Amino acid sequence: MKNDDKTSFRTEFLELHPTDQIDIFKQLSIEKRKHVYRYLTPAEFAEIFQGLQLTEQKTIFAELEDDFGLRMINELSADDVTDFFGNIPDSVATYLLSKLEESEANNIKLLLSYKEDTAGAIMTTEFITISPNETVTQVMARLRKEGADAETIYYLYVVNDDDKLTGVVSLRELIVAQTGATIAQVMKEQVVTVSAFADQEEVSMIIKDYDLLAVPVITSEEKLIGIVTVDDILDVIEEENSEDIGQFAAVKGALDLDLNAFVATKRRLPWLILLLFIGMLTAGIIGGFEGILAEVAMLAIFIPLIADMAGNTGTQSLAIVVRGLALEKFDRNAVIKLLKREALSGFMMGTVCGILVSILALVIPQGNLMLGFVIGVSLFATVFISTLTGTIIPLIIHKLKIDPAVASGPFITTINDIVGLFLYFTIATSLLHYL
Amino acid sequence: MKNDDKTSFRTEFLELHPTDQIDIFKQLSIEKRKHVYRYLTPAEFAEIFQGLQLTEQKTIFAELEDDFGLRMINELSADDVTDFFGNIPDSVATYLLSKLEESEANNIKLLLSYKEDTAGAIMTTEFITISPNETVTQVMARLRKEGADAETIYYLYVVNDDDKLTGVVSLRELIVAQTGATIAQVMKEQVVTVSAFADQEEVSMIIKDYDLLAVPVITSEEKLIGIVTVDDILDVIEEENSEDIGQFAAVKGALDLDLNAFVATKRRLPWLILLLFIGMLTAGIIGGFEGILAEVAMLAIFIPLIADMAGNTGTQSLAIVVRGLALEKFDRNAVIKLLKREALSGFMMGTVCGILVSILALVIPQGNLMLGFVIGVSLFATVFISTLTGTIIPLIIHKLKIDPAVASGPFITTINDIVGLFLYFTIATSLLHYL
Repeated sequence: MKNDDKTSFRTEFLELHPTDQIDIFKQLSIEKRKHVYRYLTPAEFAEIFQGLQLTEQKTIFAELEDDFGLRMINELSADDVTDFFGNIPDSVATYLLSKLEESEANNIKLLLSYKEDTAGAIMTTEFITISPNETVTQVMARLRKEGADAETIYYLYVVNDDDKLTGVVSLRELIVAQTGATIAQVMKEQVVTVSAFADQEEVSMIIKDYDLLAVPVITSEEKLIGIVTVDDILDVIEEENSEDIGQFAAVKGALDLDLNAFVATKRRLPWLILLLFIGMLTAGIIGGFEGILAEVAMLAIFIPLIADMAGNTGTQSLAIVVRGLALEKFDRNAVIKLLKREALSGFMMGTVCGILVSILALVIPQGNLMLGFVIGVSLFATVFISTLTGTIIPLIIHKLKIDPAVASGPFITTINDIVGLFLYFTIATSLLHYL
Repeated sequence: MKNDDKTSFRTEFLELHPTDQIDIFKQLSIEKRKHVYRYLTPAEFAEIFQGLQLTEQKTIFAELEDDFGLRMINELSADDVTDFFGNIPDSVATYLLSKLEESEANNIKLLLSYKEDTAGAIMTTEFITISPNETVTQVMARLRKEGADAETIYYLYVVNDDDKLTGVVSLRELIVAQTGATIAQVMKEQVVTVSAFADQEEVSMIIKDYDLLAVPVITSEEKLIGIVTVDDILDVIEEENSEDIGQFAAVKGALDLDLNAFVATKRRLPWLILLLFIGMLTAGIIGGFEGILAEVAMLAIFIPLIADMAGNTGTQSLAIVVRGLALEKFDRNAVIKLLKREALSGFMMGTVCGILVSILALVIPQGNLMLGFVIGVSLFATVFISTLTGTIIPLIIHKLKIDPAVASGPFITTINDIVGLFLYFTIATSLLHYL
């Protein structure tokens, strides 16, 4: 605990970029971490704390002395505190909230009131507003004083006396403007905004499409209540992509590498059990065709191939729809166009695969002409229909706003298996009478 | 073609945000588009052109008069021109390049020289450099003049006389700094940089982790040659995510909704045919167990269930690895930890699914004790092993740097089917002797 240690630690450590400070801090033992809490000010430590994962924040916060912890929370930006409060017991959050500075506490209460994954929940309340009557010089002078604290100073939002958002000036526009001009003269009146209730995915599309560094969040009365910045959106996009992949693989909520085996199992097993029950239907179908199977045992050899190809084509179409829904809004015309394309595409792929498998069925040891014909026609029908179900089912699910996880790859695959196997045995049964 | 039309069009249209201008322009007929080319200046039209898809750019460029097109290209930023040139015939690109202003042409040649998807290929060369000897006031005065043209003015890169990058000042720091201070006094010397050869995915991770608005691109001699801005990174992330999903569903290169049925089929069919050939192995396995199938025809009814569950568990594990590889770097320890967890998790899920299916096999019409035992043990083994193959195969593929599309969902599913069915029939054959 020598003063020398403290000085040299502070000089070297604070020189680093916060991201690197975080990397180093994460690798320290608890003893070394306790040194850090003594060497840094609450404000300096807040920089590290905001960069930790939510689970790490819980552990670390428990290690801090009460007063240090409270002062540090006062230094965090309101959106970071809100995320943290969402992850600790309500009673602790309420207690901490009561101890915070009043203006900070009010900001956090506002953010906590919005539903998860909306603009209101991810916005920050640290933004700079200016008045239309100020001059460029006046605003620049204010930025010199207040600039260090705001989340961004690169967009300045113009509000009138009723707190209504009436325009925006980028710092770039401010700098190239005549110094004597008023804000009303240099501002853009058409501001791209989002509602506090907008879904975070919509917010990220707007920031991306308009190449913005931040987008203002407004109430229904056009009052400016916050901004969402592009660095928060990068995290949102990552989260949404994890969701897409999780949905795709029926592994929602269990993608995190840090989960232990028991938690991972608990989250994955329900999907597997559900799929097991749906999969029992395939057993029912084959059981229903017991007669023909006993007659022509060779039919069994193509069961997994039909099932696989049904799953593969369905998964391809599903991926196209999932990605399409993530990147653009589907209107009626787009849906019809896509359905037509998938139908034609499925028809062509079905034809090629059907012909190919017929030929293959002739050359394998157990193959013969009848089997080639049956499997060829069946695979054609399976590929064609699976393309359509892989397209239509996720679109319906999306339209009905059901939990999209039920339109995941494994579900589409299982449904297509049922359809494909039913077709296979039906076609086999009817053709057997003619051949 | 009345002058009135032109004036009113310009007043209304140019008032809009470029993103909205692009949306409107895309919906115009070719006749109306030709009006736009006459009403707007090449510089104004460049704003629209840069926002079009590459395929749209080709069509639109063909509609422009030679001189207008050339002047517009001169107005585009070098990275946009580079993307466009990458999509038109080389001869046309070479011709256009020869007609461009020399400095612009040189910038584009530099960008074209970097491999696709590297920092060098996606960077822009329009950035602002300052000298360490300039004062804050001098730099602010320069920004007022040059600020309108650079891609971003929010980071100012400090280079010495050898063009080496020696520091960075954010515009925010510049504004809050003492006006008389020199840049050397206010700049940060530790700059986060990327190499021109760095993969775009690495660049996006750095921008995200360090919460940057732009990152400088340097040569091996630390010369500053460009910057990558956060809005370009948003596009990169989207592209990489499409790749992840495409890889997952064996539909790489065919996710675009705008492809017609023939192109979509051409890109999807090769994967399906490859999967069909691999899938033929399942037919071979069942053919190999012809004897037992003839003896106990009921074994056939659980073939698709074994295949489905093998695919489902493998896909879950695959999703975890794909997402993990996208978000962090796996070191040796992380790999071992993950393998242990998946093994334990697979064991537990296998146990539960095995017991469940044994019970189900007893209650279905065709079920009996022997079948219940066989399917239970087989499903346990299938789920357990599929979890491991779904984890190990993509990790090996990643390590070997093979095209990751071969580790996609359908491939893992097919491989797991083969393993699962082989286990099922082997277990059935050996148990038959004892029961």
